[in-house]
Amino acid sequence: MQIIHPESKVVIIWESLIVLVTLYNYLAIPFRIAFKTSSGGIWLILDILSDSILITDIFLRFHMGYIDQGAFINDQQKIQQHYRANDFKINLIASFPVDILIRVLFPSLPGYVIGIARLLRLLRGFQCLGIFRRWENNVNVNPVVIRMINLVMIIFLIDHWVACVWFFIGETTKISNESWLTSASLENARTTTQYMKSLYWSITTLTTVGYGDITPTNDLEIAFTLIIMFLGVSMYAFIIGNVASLIANLDANQGRFREKLDQIQAYMRERRIPSPLQQQVRDYYQYMWEYSHDASMELDFLDELPHSIKTRIYLHLHQELLEKVPLFKEADKGFIEDLVIKLRPRILPPEDYIIREEQLGHEMYFIKRGEVIAFSEKTGRVYRTMTAGMFFGEIALLYSSRRTASVKTQTYCELFVLYKDDFDQVLENYPRFWEKVKEIAEQRFQTK
Amino acid sequence: MQIIHPESKVVIIWESLIVLVTLYNYLAIPFRIAFKTSSGGIWLILDILSDSILITDIFLRFHMGYIDQGAFINDQQKIQQHYRANDFKINLIASFPVDILIRVLFPSLPGYVIGIARLLRLLRGFQCLGIFRRWENNVNVNPVVIRMINLVMIIFLIDHWVACVWFFIGETTKISNESWLTSASLENARTTTQYMKSLYWSITTLTTVGYGDITPTNDLEIAFTLIIMFLGVSMYAFIIGNVASLIANLDANQGRFREKLDQIQAYMRERRIPSPLQQQVRDYYQYMWEYSHDASMELDFLDELPHSIKTRIYLHLHQELLEKVPLFKEADKGFIEDLVIKLRPRILPPEDYIIREEQLGHEMYFIKRGEVIAFSEKTGRVYRTMTAGMFFGEIALLYSSRRTASVKTQTYCELFVLYKDDFDQVLENYPRFWEKVKEIAEQRFQTK
Amino acid sequence: MQIIHPESKVVIIWESLIVLVTLYNYLAIPFRIAFKTSSGGIWLILDILSDSILITDIFLRFHMGYIDQGAFINDQQKIQQHYRANDFKINLIASFPVDILIRVLFPSLPGYVIGIARLLRLLRGFQCLGIFRRWENNVNVNPVVIRMINLVMIIFLIDHWVACVWFFIGETTKISNESWLTSASLENARTTTQYMKSLYWSITTLTTVGYGDITPTNDLEIAFTLIIMFLGVSMYAFIIGNVASLIANLDANQGRFREKLDQIQAYMRERRIPSPLQQQVRDYYQYMWEYSHDASMELDFLDELPHSIKTRIYLHLHQELLEKVPLFKEADKGFIEDLVIKLRPRILPPEDYIIREEQLGHEMYFIKRGEVIAFSEKTGRVYRTMTAGMFFGEIALLYSSRRTASVKTQTYCELFVLYKDDFDQVLENYPRFWEKVKEIAEQRFQTK
Amino acid sequence: MQIIHPESKVVIIWESLIVLVTLYNYLAIPFRIAFKTSSGGIWLILDILSDSILITDIFLRFHMGYIDQGAFINDQQKIQQHYRANDFKINLIASFPVDILIRVLFPSLPGYVIGIARLLRLLRGFQCLGIFRRWENNVNVNPVVIRMINLVMIIFLIDHWVACVWFFIGETTKISNESWLTSASLENARTTTQYMKSLYWSITTLTTVGYGDITPTNDLEIAFTLIIMFLGVSMYAFIIGNVASLIANLDANQGRFREKLDQIQAYMRERRIPSPLQQQVRDYYQYMWEYSHDASMELDFLDELPHSIKTRIYLHLHQELLEKVPLFKEADKGFIEDLVIKLRPRILPPEDYIIREEQLGHEMYFIKRGEVIAFSEKTGRVYRTMTAGMFFGEIALLYSSRRTASVKTQTYCELFVLYKDDFDQVLENYPRFWEKVKEIAEQRFQTK
Repeated sequence: MQIIHPESKVVIIWESLIVLVTLYNYLAIPFRIAFKTSSGGIWLILDILSDSILITDIFLRFHMGYIDQGAFINDQQKIQQHYRANDFKINLIASFPVDILIRVLFPSLPGYVIGIARLLRLLRGFQCLGIFRRWENNVNVNPVVIRMINLVMIIFLIDHWVACVWFFIGETTKISNESWLTSASLENARTTTQYMKSLYWSITTLTTVGYGDITPTNDLEIAFTLIIMFLGVSMYAFIIGNVASLIANLDANQGRFREKLDQIQAYMRERRIPSPLQQQVRDYYQYMWEYSHDASMELDFLDELPHSIKTRIYLHLHQELLEKVPLFKEADKGFIEDLVIKLRPRILPPEDYIIREEQLGHEMYFIKRGEVIAFSEKTGRVYRTMTAGMFFGEIALLYSSRRTASVKTQTYCELFVLYKDDFDQVLENYPRFWEKVKEIAEQRFQTK
Repeated sequence: MQIIHPESKVVIIWESLIVLVTLYNYLAIPFRIAFKTSSGGIWLILDILSDSILITDIFLRFHMGYIDQGAFINDQQKIQQHYRANDFKINLIASFPVDILIRVLFPSLPGYVIGIARLLRLLRGFQCLGIFRRWENNVNVNPVVIRMINLVMIIFLIDHWVACVWFFIGETTKISNESWLTSASLENARTTTQYMKSLYWSITTLTTVGYGDITPTNDLEIAFTLIIMFLGVSMYAFIIGNVASLIANLDANQGRFREKLDQIQAYMRERRIPSPLQQQVRDYYQYMWEYSHDASMELDFLDELPHSIKTRIYLHLHQELLEKVPLFKEADKGFIEDLVIKLRPRILPPEDYIIREEQLGHEMYFIKRGEVIAFSEKTGRVYRTMTAGMFFGEIALLYSSRRTASVKTQTYCELFVLYKDDFDQVLENYPRFWEKVKEIAEQRFQTK
Repeated sequence: MQIIHPESKVVIIWESLIVLVTLYNYLAIPFRIAFKTSSGGIWLILDILSDSILITDIFLRFHMGYIDQGAFINDQQKIQQHYRANDFKINLIASFPVDILIRVLFPSLPGYVIGIARLLRLLRGFQCLGIFRRWENNVNVNPVVIRMINLVMIIFLIDHWVACVWFFIGETTKISNESWLTSASLENARTTTQYMKSLYWSITTLTTVGYGDITPTNDLEIAFTLIIMFLGVSMYAFIIGNVASLIANLDANQGRFREKLDQIQAYMRERRIPSPLQQQVRDYYQYMWEYSHDASMELDFLDELPHSIKTRIYLHLHQELLEKVPLFKEADKGFIEDLVIKLRPRILPPEDYIIREEQLGHEMYFIKRGEVIAFSEKTGRVYRTMTAGMFFGEIALLYSSRRTASVKTQTYCELFVLYKDDFDQVLENYPRFWEKVKEIAEQRFQTK
Repeated sequence: MQIIHPESKVVIIWESLIVLVTLYNYLAIPFRIAFKTSSGGIWLILDILSDSILITDIFLRFHMGYIDQGAFINDQQKIQQHYRANDFKINLIASFPVDILIRVLFPSLPGYVIGIARLLRLLRGFQCLGIFRRWENNVNVNPVVIRMINLVMIIFLIDHWVACVWFFIGETTKISNESWLTSASLENARTTTQYMKSLYWSITTLTTVGYGDITPTNDLEIAFTLIIMFLGVSMYAFIIGNVASLIANLDANQGRFREKLDQIQAYMRERRIPSPLQQQVRDYYQYMWEYSHDASMELDFLDELPHSIKTRIYLHLHQELLEKVPLFKEADKGFIEDLVIKLRPRILPPEDYIIREEQLGHEMYFIKRGEVIAFSEKTGRVYRTMTAGMFFGEIALLYSSRRTASVKTQTYCELFVLYKDDFDQVLENYPRFWEKVKEIAEQRFQTK
């Protein structure tokens, strides 16, 4: 049998199934114990179905590779060792059909005993938490969504378990005629109504709504209520707080952006910056936000990555820009790779000077987006209009000279800058190409 | 017809109208379905009025420009394409008068059917969220206020909808004589009282006050209560938390300032700094706070802006300071523009030395606010008193020399410093002016 | 009459009185309107007493100086102008004895009309907020305590006002026999009991405890309850959150310290650092914490201060250290002042090397606390034991030479380091002293 | 008698006992006063037992050393002085058996008087808070766990005390037949039931569940409820919030990691980075997380430590790496110690270039984990495979030369880099070893 990759789609579907089965067990087991349901009919079918999935899972795991130090291990023997050493035992215990055995051996036992016999199934919960953790990092869905589903499930399971225990206590103590079930005249109601009232009490208490239409009557019920209020309420508050912070994080970036813009507006109002200038500043930040969301983040994150990955990302982002430059035509692939990570982004609003005639230049520019014009400061004559994919100022890489024309943006522009210093630093490692460049520089200087 | 600018005042007023109409629909539609109000009278008039506004809006949008990459698009054709591609369809559906059609075709239908027919109006809600977002960034009101109004509206809408559904369930199940309406003897009460009691239950539950005087009685009511408590309560808590953090942010700056001052005071107490010195430190921070609120923020924010905008802000802030200096009289406009962004603010308390006689100077000063004196350290003779708009130490820009007098503040002063290095760097780009400056320097040196 | 300083102790006591009087008005006025108390007896005395204080305050303010741009203004005329332009009008309105006038003109009017006539007194609340703000910054009490008192007062005032309105509504609607007062059979109870029950309902609702033993019965009561729950509950939650964050901030420093130590311990466990070494690290941080609470903060804060204040603080902290050094004996006071801000603190655990024999030295050390020994690395011979107030390594300030002995700490030590570079930089401004130092250096070198 | 170390295990056990005894007193004293239990039987035995532990503690403290400025003080006289000056008096008062005296003098007094007589025992609470603080820093358990236990205990104590006072009020006012005890028909119930109902009311109110089945009936009860709601509820909310933030901090590191990864994934999706490259980035961060949890923290924390401790940690972490290098064989121990703190970690994914043929080298590498190959770029020939414990590029420390081979990772690798600059800096302090190194360098150069 072939080894399955642990991050393949089949595995994600299979693990969803495991999660579903475990969820079923977490819901059904306490319900069946508390409400003393029969052990036959639909329950039996669901039990057999879910158990067979769990048992199949054990066999599958022996053929599922794993990731060790970033490498996919697909050696059959190593997989077996790894599984045996880790989850095998707990999975086996959690899937062992004790209840079937009991059914066969003692067929006359009441249904809720089966529920108790199935309690070991709950051990699969740990595996599910692991699955959720992996999903967060690997599945292509927003990880916040997965965490949210996870939390909602946990909240509901807490509500459900508390409801089941609450009913169980009421049921057990109703003989003495002093129980919440008798007070609420529910002792002979349908199971659905009984369950809903239990769940109603459970949620009413845990959310601290506390209507007070169902309250504990005997000592055992009071004791349970005390524990639920003492521990449950704070746990509940904590989880709700978690959900809230998750929602808040959904647009944390935007929150930060807004806060910053608010501060800037406050500053400008205070300094009485003229209104049109205020509008320009706002527009600029608005553009920056829409275009790049968080431009500053980009650089931090890319700088952390190891060289090889960083280079590949930058190559993806703007290799074509570099390849168009005649100066780099004959350069090595390695040279381009080294150069590409030196490009620095710059976003400019309309009518902004990039280069000023007569000033010293130390860098060249590539246009990624937008339109610029090169013109003479004195005569006002426009030499050239340049758009995305074009570049200018490349002579500055050869020798720092005074600019021969001014360059100004026409629209919002995204440029990449390459500084002479960075260029020289890369050039140092390519001695043959260096001579080529020097040659070009000399020719240019003479022809100039 | 002329193209309307999307940020003009007319549009803001028009969009307020759209928001009002949508609010009306969000309030009226569930109310009319739940409380089975008649479809005539005042409702009919309001319906026709609000619908005609929505339909007018569709026509208006074809003549309203939009912003693309920071540029205002006012080309009729592009606008049509843009609108058709974006909001047109949803707006059309949301404004289509299905209810009028139904009224005409089936005049005998009960009133709440009209409510259902109008449900599509709710789709305008998305548009309103967009409007709120735009207002936050463009309208000249504190954006926190707009967000607050937005949240209060959302909270009230949730309360209202829950109240309507709660009444609807009570009304529907009252036939079986087991409903919250019958328990509270409200089945024959006036609609106002019924609505208020429903809203009362809704808010009591969502805020977790939970008096318990109105509680669910039948299974459907319990189920609804469960959902409201399970989802509603946490959503409510989240929104309240949001409002709280908004209020907190209203004076976030002041909060940070206070926290810092607290730390400083704790530090000074611990180190047993003498009491008058402590008072001086406190006064200094108090002055800084009152004057500049968050001085450190200013520089960060201005440094992020593109060159052209930054220059214009600085020109606004202190161009006149520079133009008074004889040394800069003959400089280019470009030179002044480059120099202005090099000025660095410095705030000093009374009796603080700015320049000490005999020490080497590398910078000149401009006084924006306050009063300083120049005096001789040895003789104590006061040479000059200088106030806002004056400057001193300009020789240091020409050559680093020892100061010929001490300068001390008399009151709290706001100064701007220009360092020789910054001056030289700018000078480099203006070769003709450079020679001028050298000339002046040489003259000064000889005359000295 | 003499001008009073606004930060003097007398003013603080007087302002406490104003706060008390305003508090009385905020408590008494709604109570008297709602509970229709008589206007005579104790109330009359309290009214006259409090009003006379408020009127005195107006006169006092004309003789109380104010702070403008950090300077105390004590010019009688300016004070009058300033007061007239700011608080005078509102204070006058808030103190005008309308109620006395009414009492005189219409002696037969019921008592609660007097309460209404006194409503203008509430305007003094704004002044009190201002007083609290000033106290936070100036009074020598922990500002968190003042803010806390402030918040508790606001919470109680909200509770009190809600209680008064709630009673007023109950009282007004009890004629129709459908009021919370009649339901709770309180219509003939003593005023104390009535007030306590009202307050009980108010707090029960605002804290969301919601027992439900007192609930609204008629439409007006429901409407009021809706508003209280809708606005009040969130406002309440916000204020409580504020108190919580205030308490949290009381030991924010310690919280940060703990969090850091937790991270460090986790790190060390993970890397399996040997247990005694872990204990040493823990001890070091524990010592750092006990000794300096937040050492890193010190430098940040001092660097922000203007030169003059910074120098004065440093002089206070360690002038005596410098004055003991023979090398600095003949230095100017200005030189010492410049040098003192260059000292950098360093805290070392026992048995730590400060200087190693044979290595190049670029700095000298002052001992503030603790004990060090100088010894020979080869022979192990101890040359000298040095304690607080002593210094060593001063030759390194003259020329970078190899150290002639090793120096090691014996206990935890607090040292101050003076680097040669900093020393040289200061020296540059004192040319005469520079020559002196060179002379010493040459002598030393020759004698060596 | 021998002096006991305050951080020894015996002391921890003894202090646990003190905490237990104090907890007993905090629980038993209010209970006995409120419920008027007898003073004999089990209570008498527990009292004597707990008192004898407290008295023994006083004697023990005279023989327990303490920590002063990081040094363990074990001088008998100093210890006595220190204890007398600090906790002795309060401990004596808190342990003085007033109740025994009363029992002897007035044997007929009712039991609850004994409770009152024991109130002074509560003073030991302060000592317990101190013990908890010390445990957090010194005991080898996660400090968050200790803080959590601490908070849960405080919450329960608040609940318990409120319950006791509530019962006491009910009991005292029941004579007038208007008390919560009579309303709930509990005046003749068993003490257990009475206590549980009191605790039930206390927790119901403090958690704001507020069922409303037990409510205050007389004025004294209402007043107490008001205070509990006014102060208690906010305090409770604050403590719950504290627990929540503690739980949140339990995996704060992971939270930060997740948030970062979320941002990165959002960025990559937006920039349309190809899917396999996205997976590589995710794998890299996943590896980084699993391996080092928070790599960036490591350096910050180690840089803060004093030299001696830092060196010892680094020696522990990677001394053996250095000792293998032939070049360092003859170096001093001091030289190795200085060098070890210059090693900088670098983690690389598979297939990443470490060194490129022909490029200039300025650093050497040590492999801590993983596998690399050295190969020729042109011929593709693999020279060598290197694994953990090996090193390469050491020639770069002698003179910056072009690399003679490319080196690439095969798996995820953890390397340590040593830069020539750092090496030179350390070398400066070891002149004799410097000559040795120069000699080696010259030999290499000639043989090359």
